[in-house]
Amino acid sequence: MRKHSYPRPKKSGASGTHGSLWLYGRHTVVAVLANPARRLRRLVALPDSAEDLRALAARAAAQFPGQVETLSQSGLRELLPRDSVHQGFAAEADPLPEPTLAEMIAALPTSAERLIVVLLDRITDPHNVGAIMRSAAAFSVTAVVVPEHGAPPVTGVLAKAASGALETVPLVRIANLAQGLEALKDAGFWCLGLDGQAEHDLATLDLAPRVALVFGAEGGGLRRLTRERCDVLARVATRHQWHSLNVSNAAAIALYEIAIRKT
Amino acid sequence: MRKHSYPRPKKSGASGTHGSLWLYGRHTVVAVLANPARRLRRLVALPDSAEDLRALAARAAAQFPGQVETLSQSGLRELLPRDSVHQGFAAEADPLPEPTLAEMIAALPTSAERLIVVLLDRITDPHNVGAIMRSAAAFSVTAVVVPEHGAPPVTGVLAKAASGALETVPLVRIANLAQGLEALKDAGFWCLGLDGQAEHDLATLDLAPRVALVFGAEGGGLRRLTRERCDVLARVATRHQWHSLNVSNAAAIALYEIAIRKT
Repeated sequence: MRKHSYPRPKKSGASGTHGSLWLYGRHTVVAVLANPARRLRRLVALPDSAEDLRALAARAAAQFPGQVETLSQSGLRELLPRDSVHQGFAAEADPLPEPTLAEMIAALPTSAERLIVVLLDRITDPHNVGAIMRSAAAFSVTAVVVPEHGAPPVTGVLAKAASGALETVPLVRIANLAQGLEALKDAGFWCLGLDGQAEHDLATLDLAPRVALVFGAEGGGLRRLTRERCDVLARVATRHQWHSLNVSNAAAIALYEIAIRKT
Repeated sequence: MRKHSYPRPKKSGASGTHGSLWLYGRHTVVAVLANPARRLRRLVALPDSAEDLRALAARAAAQFPGQVETLSQSGLRELLPRDSVHQGFAAEADPLPEPTLAEMIAALPTSAERLIVVLLDRITDPHNVGAIMRSAAAFSVTAVVVPEHGAPPVTGVLAKAASGALETVPLVRIANLAQGLEALKDAGFWCLGLDGQAEHDLATLDLAPRVALVFGAEGGGLRRLTRERCDVLARVATRHQWHSLNVSNAAAIALYEIAIRKT
């Protein structure tokens, strides 16, 4: 699994104590344990899952000096958001260090293979952001860039939707998305804004090796300043005029088109 | 907008009174109002949205003999699931009639254009089922087929995730998915099961004009009996070994590939 470890930890939104957050679900906890950049505070399991979690913890790359705790259903439920699908596994972790955009750009590989950076413009729903992070991981996206204002904090809900993707795809917060697009252009990225009303079909575009893919909120779409910085606007082709795609589904298709179909 | 109206209404799971359900969100309510097969009991709006909803109701195709009611935030919240994103619009509606598989097959167009039917094997999360319905509408899928047991009821949560798709894509409930696949084969459908571990890449397959696309639950995947009835199993190509796609994102990509890329 690809790892990232950058200097200068920053605080991100959290649901645990003292800035920590609770991560849950077997797949998510397995990913957390495999990430050497993670500092864990607690590992807890239901009785049925405790042996499994102890075996996983014993060979973990994450930093965890403690012991796996066994909790009852109600004990575990008290630690997590209501209706969490935890599958018997939870970890309390410090937030990951978040690189700056400059650090992310400085760490880019020099190979000629396709590099994709995703930018989210005003996508505030943590399920959608988590699902996009998950697709970003599946298509080996280099980083997901969000504005400091107008993006959800990293919570257990976002992490669960991301299903382990937080451990492999760096999340980069920047003050100004339009300025971020300029910095990415300077680093050789071609900026492509997804827009359901755009004239161009994504599938017909010729793309540079480095692509910055910008997704806007459902309804509002890309903000004018974001849109104006894009080199091109394109849409994901569908068959129906009136019905649109959920933003995370549109993002999945766009990533598939760029990472798989066009390489 | 494509409409469907079939005989023999059946009861589906509902969150309103007497078998009705509450639908909410502007896009969803606009779709409901455009569907002549919908029988509405109440239309309610926040004060800011009431004029807009009255204008929409005045030209509605749906059956609604009543008047639009104006409610306060708390009044509207009492009618809907907690944390509903209603955007000031809600409608209490009777469940739609659900066609049988035989009725759906009998109503198929005879044209040679690609027809797609989607089958969901044990996908129980209403957000995922709703999101897949929404993508099905965007890619003009003929029907979504689910087992009577092992599929979520049609609730406001599912309808919101479907964002109006319930009004255009018939939902068909059948007792036995494997038998349903046989009936679809008899009607000329080629049955394609999505499976992350499959040998074939979906993009490389030659497809018949009629395709039945089967999605299984995350984790468990397709059941053995379902898998054995498929003509072929294929995967959506990704770039990362360990990270998988959310089922609704995988479904969106598969529908895009079959409805757009391969036609």
